[in-house]
Amino acid sequence: MKNYIIADEWNIIESGFDAHLNKISESLFSIGNGRMGQRANFEESYSGETLQGNYVAGVYYPDKTRVGWWKNGYPEYFAKVLNAINWIGLHIVIEGETLDLAKTKVSDFKRVLDMKAGVLIRTFTAELNSGKKVKVQATRLYSIADDEISALHYHLTALNFDGTIEIAAFIDGDVKNQDANYDEKFWDEVTQKQEKSTDYLVLRTKKTEFEVCTASNTTIFVNGNLQNLKSGARDKYLEKTATFSVKQDSTVEIYKIVATISSQNYEKTELLDAAKTSVNKAIAKGFKTLLAEQAEAWATKWQDSDIVIDGDVAAQQAIRFNIFQLNQTYTGKDARLNIGPKGFTGEKYGGSTYWDTEAYCIPFYLSTSPEDVAKNLLIYRYKQLDKAIENAQKLGFNKGAALYPMVTMNGEECHNEWEITFEEIHRNGAIAFAIFNYIRYTGNQAYLAEYGLEVLIGIARFWKQRVNWSADKNQYVMLGVTGPNEYENNINNNWYTNKLASWCLTYAIEATEIVKVTAPDQYARIQAKISLDEATEFAEWTDIAENMYYPYDEKAAVFLQQDGYMDKEQILVKDLPASERPLNQKWSWDRILRSCFIKQADVLQGMYFFEDEFDQETLQRNFTFYENRTVHESSLSPCVHSILAAKLNDEEKAYEFYLRTARLDLDDYNNDTEDGLHITSMAGTWMSIVEGFAGMRVRNGQLKFNPFLPKNWTSFSFTVGFRGVALKVSIAAGQITIINHSGETVTIGIFNELHQITPGEQVITYQELV
Amino acid sequence: MKNYIIADEWNIIESGFDAHLNKISESLFSIGNGRMGQRANFEESYSGETLQGNYVAGVYYPDKTRVGWWKNGYPEYFAKVLNAINWIGLHIVIEGETLDLAKTKVSDFKRVLDMKAGVLIRTFTAELNSGKKVKVQATRLYSIADDEISALHYHLTALNFDGTIEIAAFIDGDVKNQDANYDEKFWDEVTQKQEKSTDYLVLRTKKTEFEVCTASNTTIFVNGNLQNLKSGARDKYLEKTATFSVKQDSTVEIYKIVATISSQNYEKTELLDAAKTSVNKAIAKGFKTLLAEQAEAWATKWQDSDIVIDGDVAAQQAIRFNIFQLNQTYTGKDARLNIGPKGFTGEKYGGSTYWDTEAYCIPFYLSTSPEDVAKNLLIYRYKQLDKAIENAQKLGFNKGAALYPMVTMNGEECHNEWEITFEEIHRNGAIAFAIFNYIRYTGNQAYLAEYGLEVLIGIARFWKQRVNWSADKNQYVMLGVTGPNEYENNINNNWYTNKLASWCLTYAIEATEIVKVTAPDQYARIQAKISLDEATEFAEWTDIAENMYYPYDEKAAVFLQQDGYMDKEQILVKDLPASERPLNQKWSWDRILRSCFIKQADVLQGMYFFEDEFDQETLQRNFTFYENRTVHESSLSPCVHSILAAKLNDEEKAYEFYLRTARLDLDDYNNDTEDGLHITSMAGTWMSIVEGFAGMRVRNGQLKFNPFLPKNWTSFSFTVGFRGVALKVSIAAGQITIINHSGETVTIGIFNELHQITPGEQVITYQELV
Repeated sequence: MKNYIIADEWNIIESGFDAHLNKISESLFSIGNGRMGQRANFEESYSGETLQGNYVAGVYYPDKTRVGWWKNGYPEYFAKVLNAINWIGLHIVIEGETLDLAKTKVSDFKRVLDMKAGVLIRTFTAELNSGKKVKVQATRLYSIADDEISALHYHLTALNFDGTIEIAAFIDGDVKNQDANYDEKFWDEVTQKQEKSTDYLVLRTKKTEFEVCTASNTTIFVNGNLQNLKSGARDKYLEKTATFSVKQDSTVEIYKIVATISSQNYEKTELLDAAKTSVNKAIAKGFKTLLAEQAEAWATKWQDSDIVIDGDVAAQQAIRFNIFQLNQTYTGKDARLNIGPKGFTGEKYGGSTYWDTEAYCIPFYLSTSPEDVAKNLLIYRYKQLDKAIENAQKLGFNKGAALYPMVTMNGEECHNEWEITFEEIHRNGAIAFAIFNYIRYTGNQAYLAEYGLEVLIGIARFWKQRVNWSADKNQYVMLGVTGPNEYENNINNNWYTNKLASWCLTYAIEATEIVKVTAPDQYARIQAKISLDEATEFAEWTDIAENMYYPYDEKAAVFLQQDGYMDKEQILVKDLPASERPLNQKWSWDRILRSCFIKQADVLQGMYFFEDEFDQETLQRNFTFYENRTVHESSLSPCVHSILAAKLNDEEKAYEFYLRTARLDLDDYNNDTEDGLHITSMAGTWMSIVEGFAGMRVRNGQLKFNPFLPKNWTSFSFTVGFRGVALKVSIAAGQITIINHSGETVTIGIFNELHQITPGEQVITYQELV
Repeated sequence: MKNYIIADEWNIIESGFDAHLNKISESLFSIGNGRMGQRANFEESYSGETLQGNYVAGVYYPDKTRVGWWKNGYPEYFAKVLNAINWIGLHIVIEGETLDLAKTKVSDFKRVLDMKAGVLIRTFTAELNSGKKVKVQATRLYSIADDEISALHYHLTALNFDGTIEIAAFIDGDVKNQDANYDEKFWDEVTQKQEKSTDYLVLRTKKTEFEVCTASNTTIFVNGNLQNLKSGARDKYLEKTATFSVKQDSTVEIYKIVATISSQNYEKTELLDAAKTSVNKAIAKGFKTLLAEQAEAWATKWQDSDIVIDGDVAAQQAIRFNIFQLNQTYTGKDARLNIGPKGFTGEKYGGSTYWDTEAYCIPFYLSTSPEDVAKNLLIYRYKQLDKAIENAQKLGFNKGAALYPMVTMNGEECHNEWEITFEEIHRNGAIAFAIFNYIRYTGNQAYLAEYGLEVLIGIARFWKQRVNWSADKNQYVMLGVTGPNEYENNINNNWYTNKLASWCLTYAIEATEIVKVTAPDQYARIQAKISLDEATEFAEWTDIAENMYYPYDEKAAVFLQQDGYMDKEQILVKDLPASERPLNQKWSWDRILRSCFIKQADVLQGMYFFEDEFDQETLQRNFTFYENRTVHESSLSPCVHSILAAKLNDEEKAYEFYLRTARLDLDDYNNDTEDGLHITSMAGTWMSIVEGFAGMRVRNGQLKFNPFLPKNWTSFSFTVGFRGVALKVSIAAGQITIINHSGETVTIGIFNELHQITPGEQVITYQELV
């Protein structure tokens, strides 16, 4: 736990330079634009501790896996997002001495992430060993308005000397991943080209042969006078250099405007030309215009997705930080991209896709972005359906059964732990549930015919083969699974997985019926494509759904996480000594597995998904039982508990769970922010507020709210888009204000009463519970 | 499955050279002497496929482990036996052309492993590209009589040419392990020394700093004339060379007599001198005397351990091969050594110790070797008790609880799969059972006071902490284990493990009572050393033993392998298509884990250990149930089924199971003989005959036999040593002949009738069942 970020409503601020915090700040101050992104590495040379990271979404390398003991069915590669070309590089030499914050005296250091404008600004004064002082302001952005463009402005003032300054503004592709399994470099050079002020470098990834072209335009001004630049080059590296004299108070300004494009979006033969066009367009605008466009683009994003909290600056900063990161990680323009758990902020988890997307991120994008954004996340899985079928085949399934991978870049499984890769199959259910959730929210049933149904049937076919009939129980069972609670492995009859599987089977049948009625042509197409034998398959699926076994404990009257859970020694988390936590650091894996402690919501994840099936008493009993045993050692856990606590009117607990993730990265709770940010869990924080505190749901095509106001807040408000209507919802003590920005009246439920919300503002009072 | 080894009663014979079989033959023709050993690599240069392997027992390297996903509690190193100095090397150049069987025309190739004499002989004629032909006979041995000595004689005849031959007889320590995790070399040179005909090389292992000195004496004769030798050297390599002219029919004879000693047995400062003394003693004897001593030493071994089978040459060859390998792998002289699953025949399994030793090898050595041999295997574990306690501590156990490692060299765990390392804990029980078995066989209860009790108490303390009280079942349960059937992982209440644990707790108490009465001083010493709190601890252990939960299936009336086993789809092995076997090659790990198929005896392993507790009907029901589900994909499985089938008078099945392992390596059943031989399973083959066909048991201090004669054998006989009495037992149809080689009368049970066997020969007839 750290506490060095200065609270501010719109900015993330670090004041003073502490090299020990640098890798944490590099994560926190990361910027990106959905297409690419970067850790907050310094522009100038830095010989201290750093994790260099520039990432281009969707450009990956299949790194040959490293494994202790091979199991049949393991994938051979772990596809990793690559540390890509470093475009920000400036080598600055002042009278023979390199500017390097690890080797100079640094004062007035400040890093500001201006979330409103989408800009990272760093200022400092550095005193070199020679006693020469310079003052620097470095500003940079990844353009949200034009996602091929990034740019920086580096403004240096010679404070107390006359002398010579040499500057090399470079782009460097001779980089590697720290997580490379065999210490290899992943990039080869294809070609390079240098013009007067613009350098072009085309690099190709090994094996996958993605090509990325970086076009970097450099201009350097000394006291406003444009400098002549020389070109320099070596393998995978190009530079523009200038050497000049300065006097005290001289200013040096360096601009780099960079286009980054890849063979994902252009023919390889056209990369150079396209990069030239792209960078020239940005050069023509100039840095100031890029800044303005950026602020404007972010203003739109904030309009759609901001949450305002009155009365708690730290909470305000935290939720905006979470929303900012989500928006700069995924913009939904490209259905080939997804949301890595660390986004563009680190190498961990390989930048790959997890079930986090479906279970935690979809709701955020559904409510705060145009409908296509969430839809593209669904289509991502649709595009990977064939690979999911192949993946299932590798494990011995057939007849079009689809098992989506636990971790993936291109649809192929990347992960190699049998208990996860082969057994944490509930991910398949989350993917089906996301389709249901999307349609429930948007009302867009046409999605089923277009994309959804094929996925649902592939998943249903998997569950059909994955369960087996237990002659002993006279029911269907599901053996050898790992639930969301990864502190149990290879268990039998995980309640959550059985529940989800059964639901999937039923929903696939329902979805088929809808498509048959609403889009008979599409149904015929799908039927022909996947050889659906409705009579037989639906009968089998129905039989399974109707005869699924669900473990239940009669004494505690709770759904049982798995068979045999009650054989464990039943200790409560409150009785765990603080010195033994977190368990995943303090206990052996053996001890963790045998204990009753739960890593993250498991039964409760199921009760969250299917909440309408359970009355409050049942929910309360299960919540109490499982909450008492849950250690929340996944950042994805507290949000679900927060939402359920809110539903149970336990406002204090709901707020407490919210707090656990809201500032997870800003305060470096788990001492791991230096690896990158917990991007996907940030969506959970948003959910805690919107689904938890505001109690927002969509039922029967209508938005509903069951709000409460956390004790130490004056009010909070947020914007949601719902079926073409943009609403601003403000919650204060006993009062909910809704501004309907659209031209039409919308019916909204508040505490089970329906209200007709006409265009404009309406205030509804409600009875506070506490 | 291969079939190229020529059947012979005393020899393993390969006729004709097939480079594709070379690595298999390198394994099959391995020789060793308990202290060191070697694959049957060629003396002369060979550029074809080969796995070079020379091993010195107990000299290992802690190779930094390679693992996909780290779990708390994993060990950092896998200790591996090292490929050590190659002492057999001969570089032979004939008129400028190197003799290399991969590059010449080979005829009359024959490899013979003379098991009676303990000698490997290879003969061949090679025609070089130049057309020059040479005939070679290479003979070598690892002396059983003096386990520091190995020697070879290489006899070459120039068949059809006059010309120059250059010979370099070298020792080469610049070798590596194929299984090195990071492709490192493990040896450094300490020193080298060259005398007129003897070279000395001292090498040191990295990290572990074992030093091994090899003293190699070379003599070369041409047509009986001793040649002058030149010395040559480079790092980790020494050679003696000679160049001379030969005429057609000239003979060249090369002798190498080599001493290998290590810092395990000598001070490092004395290694050179000691090696000199050792090699000189052997040189003084000369190669012929070494051969004679070897034959004599092997004659003694065969006298004690031979099994003679009449009427089945292939079976005779097989059982002798198994006995030969066991005897050259472990001689029991050094309690720091143990039996790697591959002995000195390959790198696989790192040459480390597994529970194979206690469960399968102890019975063989108990019956066929002096009592100290098996005892030293037990003392090996006693010496590692402190490490076993440390190992348990790493996992969170305390108060002197001992968990012996799954795989070890020096007592530290080497293996890194959580489901094995942390969970396959039944190994602890096998170690306790071996103590019981040793005492039952030898009657040597003093072992308890000396060594056994401390181990038993450490193990009991582990089980005490490893079970937990299930409030749900109102019994003790053991969660999260892997039984001998490794096709199930992380299961609850493995019947075998629960049974063994419970037995350990009871036996530890019994053993304490025995020591208290028979060796009160020793008891006081132990009590003080390990702070045994008898009152409390014994009460706890008794409580657990009395209230242990054992899964049982009422319908099938069988002990249940684990909780929930009957939830699996119950398919029988006979209904598995041949194309799907072996499962471990054809099925994904996911499918294997979820199936009901059993890798190796599990419940049945327990019924074998504790057979007296079960009546024949119970045994028959469980045997039928589990045999029908067992795929025997471990070489350790069939012997247990063979013994139980024999006990159930199912002679056909007993023989069938015996056949599955008897020629496992000779016929390369599993296509893996090239990696090395299945040494530990060879002891199981011996058990199938002696405990299975002959039905030998020790009960109440007496030997008992319940014999039958396999249908296609005329008779079989074997020798057992029992409490100072050497017996030869011959079984023919309806007749058992016992020769009592000792001077005293011994009482022996045959089919529940006791017979007084006086010195000399006695014939007892019995009723054949079939």
